[in-house]
Amino acid sequence: MTATHLTAGDADPGRPGHGHGHLHAVPDAGVGAPGPIDRAAGLALSPEAADLLFREAHTAYRFTSEPVTDEQIRAIHDLVKWAPTAMNAQPLRITLVRSPEAREALIARLAAGNRAKAQSAPLIALLSYDLDFHDTLPEVLPHAPGARDGFAAEPARAEFASFNGAMQAAYFLIGVRAAGLAAGPMGGFDREGVDREFFPEGRQRSFLVVNIGHPAADGQFPRSPRLDLERVVSVA
Amino acid sequence: MTATHLTAGDADPGRPGHGHGHLHAVPDAGVGAPGPIDRAAGLALSPEAADLLFREAHTAYRFTSEPVTDEQIRAIHDLVKWAPTAMNAQPLRITLVRSPEAREALIARLAAGNRAKAQSAPLIALLSYDLDFHDTLPEVLPHAPGARDGFAAEPARAEFASFNGAMQAAYFLIGVRAAGLAAGPMGGFDREGVDREFFPEGRQRSFLVVNIGHPAADGQFPRSPRLDLERVVSVA
Repeated sequence: MTATHLTAGDADPGRPGHGHGHLHAVPDAGVGAPGPIDRAAGLALSPEAADLLFREAHTAYRFTSEPVTDEQIRAIHDLVKWAPTAMNAQPLRITLVRSPEAREALIARLAAGNRAKAQSAPLIALLSYDLDFHDTLPEVLPHAPGARDGFAAEPARAEFASFNGAMQAAYFLIGVRAAGLAAGPMGGFDREGVDREFFPEGRQRSFLVVNIGHPAADGQFPRSPRLDLERVVSVA
Repeated sequence: MTATHLTAGDADPGRPGHGHGHLHAVPDAGVGAPGPIDRAAGLALSPEAADLLFREAHTAYRFTSEPVTDEQIRAIHDLVKWAPTAMNAQPLRITLVRSPEAREALIARLAAGNRAKAQSAPLIALLSYDLDFHDTLPEVLPHAPGARDGFAAEPARAEFASFNGAMQAAYFLIGVRAAGLAAGPMGGFDREGVDREFFPEGRQRSFLVVNIGHPAADGQFPRSPRLDLERVVSVA
């Protein structure tokens, strides 16, 4: 199978798709100067929402002291719970690390470079997946009553939950932004140590720590470059 | 570490947080009948955008013949490229399966129950991660010039790319909805066979097939139940 790369609209706007036999026509290319505003024209989403969730949203490393309420977490959950997971399995679990003792226990197990970031966050969320998510399948996938039986093996459950938990983590980060907050996801921590401390029964596996709050004035780094369309998308 | 479960606003709206010592006050609980409209009040996102991306969006299994243009894919990429990945690594690659031969080759490798769904889709996207994403780190993470050196081992790259690719797949599904389209993600296919056919050089690993288009009138199943807040969120 041969694949050609999709050309970005600004690569050669006068000759959209030239030389790429598989490309469909690009009616908007070459009309006006390419830029974020032109491009947003292809969306049904409002520019305000696109800015809030993606274009102006930005990972935060330092936060103000303004608290994050349980009501905001409720609103985030009530939004992102509708996003899709395979077999509707929803393996993600979220631990709000609120007590001073729990914060201390978690922060001690972060990579050294992540501790000050978490200390500054009014709320730290510990994301894990549930190794026993399959026990809820009869409830969340009622039209497939035998689905639970396909997950007898724990390693297969872990792989499935890891993938779908990662997707749900992404939805959660979008949800944090939808609530007008900034997120600071961090993968650098002692996962086994955190699991022993927070999930002593051994039924959840942590995989991401997310600092949540309002960014401090100096709490965001300049944005790093993103890959252009032609580096990411190809046509077969 | 002990954790209590966060109670949903409708579990006992008159006594928010009662019995949960770690819970913060919930100022909005108990005011009016709990419901989607009340709950959206906790969001900065507009109700229209919340509906478009999450609350009314819905996996599709049959599609109309209306095409999905490259311009729509450009708009989706230009939106979701801003979402975060670890080390800004962006390992997701998207193959638009447009030619009749490529469609046939992919559909033949889908689980039998997924073939009719894909056949009905005006556009099928094959999502994979790039095993050599680390080669772009000097470009996308310019402030950490040694980052590439930490990824000499391919198994570690595969694990990292699998996790971050899953997060980017989630962003992509949200982006499809932002473009006013419906997505039908499918994990059931012969990944090794697809990789041999589409990525013969062995540098990409497929992990999700996404049908994209406008849903047919009978193209969506009734929604399956989502887990309530208290099943998902706990407080430590």
